[in-house]
Amino acid sequence: MSCSTESSPQSLDREVELRARVAISKVVEPLDRVLTPVILEHGPVGAWDRIRHNAGGRFDRCAARVADLDVDRVLAVAERLGIRILLPGDDEWPSGLDELACPPACLWVKGSEHLAHGTVRSVAIVGARSATPYGVQVAQELGHGLASRGFTVVSGAAFGIDVAAHRGAIVADRPTVAAMAGGVDRPYPAAHTNLLEEIVEHGAVISESPPGASPQRQRFLARNRLIAAITPGTVVVEAGLRSGSLNTARHAEALCRVVAAVPGSVYSPTSAGCHALVRDGRAVLVTDAAECAELLGEIGADLAPVQRGEVRVRDDLPEIPRRIFDALTVHQSTSVDRLTRSAGLSASEVLRGLGHLQLRGMAERKDNGWRRQAPDG
Amino acid sequence: MSCSTESSPQSLDREVELRARVAISKVVEPLDRVLTPVILEHGPVGAWDRIRHNAGGRFDRCAARVADLDVDRVLAVAERLGIRILLPGDDEWPSGLDELACPPACLWVKGSEHLAHGTVRSVAIVGARSATPYGVQVAQELGHGLASRGFTVVSGAAFGIDVAAHRGAIVADRPTVAAMAGGVDRPYPAAHTNLLEEIVEHGAVISESPPGASPQRQRFLARNRLIAAITPGTVVVEAGLRSGSLNTARHAEALCRVVAAVPGSVYSPTSAGCHALVRDGRAVLVTDAAECAELLGEIGADLAPVQRGEVRVRDDLPEIPRRIFDALTVHQSTSVDRLTRSAGLSASEVLRGLGHLQLRGMAERKDNGWRRQAPDG
Repeated sequence: MSCSTESSPQSLDREVELRARVAISKVVEPLDRVLTPVILEHGPVGAWDRIRHNAGGRFDRCAARVADLDVDRVLAVAERLGIRILLPGDDEWPSGLDELACPPACLWVKGSEHLAHGTVRSVAIVGARSATPYGVQVAQELGHGLASRGFTVVSGAAFGIDVAAHRGAIVADRPTVAAMAGGVDRPYPAAHTNLLEEIVEHGAVISESPPGASPQRQRFLARNRLIAAITPGTVVVEAGLRSGSLNTARHAEALCRVVAAVPGSVYSPTSAGCHALVRDGRAVLVTDAAECAELLGEIGADLAPVQRGEVRVRDDLPEIPRRIFDALTVHQSTSVDRLTRSAGLSASEVLRGLGHLQLRGMAERKDNGWRRQAPDG
Repeated sequence: MSCSTESSPQSLDREVELRARVAISKVVEPLDRVLTPVILEHGPVGAWDRIRHNAGGRFDRCAARVADLDVDRVLAVAERLGIRILLPGDDEWPSGLDELACPPACLWVKGSEHLAHGTVRSVAIVGARSATPYGVQVAQELGHGLASRGFTVVSGAAFGIDVAAHRGAIVADRPTVAAMAGGVDRPYPAAHTNLLEEIVEHGAVISESPPGASPQRQRFLARNRLIAAITPGTVVVEAGLRSGSLNTARHAEALCRVVAAVPGSVYSPTSAGCHALVRDGRAVLVTDAAECAELLGEIGADLAPVQRGEVRVRDDLPEIPRRIFDALTVHQSTSVDRLTRSAGLSASEVLRGLGHLQLRGMAERKDNGWRRQAPDG
């Protein structure tokens, strides 16, 4: 709110818009079906003018909150708590938010991370609160692995997957962003008060709801769309069939962001939502940070190493030596005559093939016959 | 071999073809790169003529085996062991085999199952020999569940996934088919001798290799293509990145069969092959028998139930009652005035919404305010 001390026409305009947006943020619930169209139609200043005067008696549902509102006091509280307010068009405003059908009126931010810069290369890691130890481990490793690769880890600071993802990034000493359903001054869950302080230090805690707002259910759903919008992709680590993280995945899908999901046991209810996403072709299956980075990062720059089994000695043998190698054993010698039968090859083919194997140290002559030298691979 | 007692021109033709195919089966390795084109070009009778006379000196690699061959003895052994021989065009010949670039010369079969009928509705369940207890459980449940739905379970009788899939079908008292790399008279692995006897009783043991043939590596790879070809789809339950079951999946893919894979822990090396298949878009993720049946069965007849989370009381509430419901608590009464503020609604909206909730038994008036009645879902 440094702008409140300036006085150019531009900054005056911003001040007017800031006050309108802060008022809307205080008075209107995110995604309110009646009020959102009014804001979209008239813009924040025009909409706020109508709302506070209850134009045409259409804004009764705001009346109680309008009566309580003191914008100066809200701004003073935010400043005292070290909370800054971002508006659309601000340098730090994450451009992904502009793609939302109902963007937030403003963003309340606590922490040093530059949100616009920090979310260019970022990833949402979300999942069930009732995560299993397996999911927690995966989330922490993904958080750590992606943070180490320069991705800002964005999540919701909830129990389970969220906190594990944040912690992974913190352990990697990289920024992480927590998007809250309530005000950024209201640690939720309370058990994560210290974590959220760490996140403020390492990155940022953000919210669409003003300081003091309680974390209501509707606000969680609205919060999920922010997580999906400010990141290029969302990874669902564990999700039951009712998990809120599937809501985040739906938002990511609607915004044409990358959606990825981590597999798990078919017997784990907290993996059922992930499996459904993959099965329905709505998410890519990912198993580690490298695969996530490949999906989310710069084309060509973040290629995951192709997972291969170990290469075995017989792999690059031509067909005939390979057939002979397979017909040999380690513990018993086999005659050339017998090899022609067991490998289905002519005597000259067997002799040439044995020469090939001998040169590579894969067969040795012993006891009037031949033995395999390399271990069967 | 009932045909050997008949004498119509047709059956004489078949007898000639049978003897040629049996000879080829004894002398030529499956998928032999030199000999297979000869068989495809000249047909079994013409090819066998060339091979046994070593025409143009091109068939040295068969000479030793040709010298050993006694077709009458082979036929007698097969008859004594209760092994029947199927040729292309026979009623019982699985038509899927005709789609192979290099179909087997003939099929050696032990067991009462009618192969052509039994494989119309069938599924290959394959996977790692070094399966985990998790994979074994999944394979057994899939085998049981698909067999119970009328699918013939086809697999390779190997340790791990294969045996679990067969056992699942046997427990369901339904036919199952084991495709062997060696002769159908050579139980492999030896530990599965009893299992294979049970499979002969419940279904069939089949092979492209003649009685007495040992299970060589090359024959396993050739066997895998038979498993893929005779079934409409292959389910990979667990597979390391080097698992032979990925070879079966590749054959199934090449034959335009359905390929499905079961997910597991990202830390399990025996699930890495399954995850790679799904990730690369080469297999559909499946988590239970119903989903497999839907993929493999008749369109419309085998639909898997859509997996849903439980439906909760608030799910079908209209927006306004839902916002009020979310703002209510179970343990403390909230005044209408307070609800207008916390839910962001007008007093009349709150009163109407409370009426709605009260009618549904989801809110009750108490202590000058309102409490939530249904549990938070």
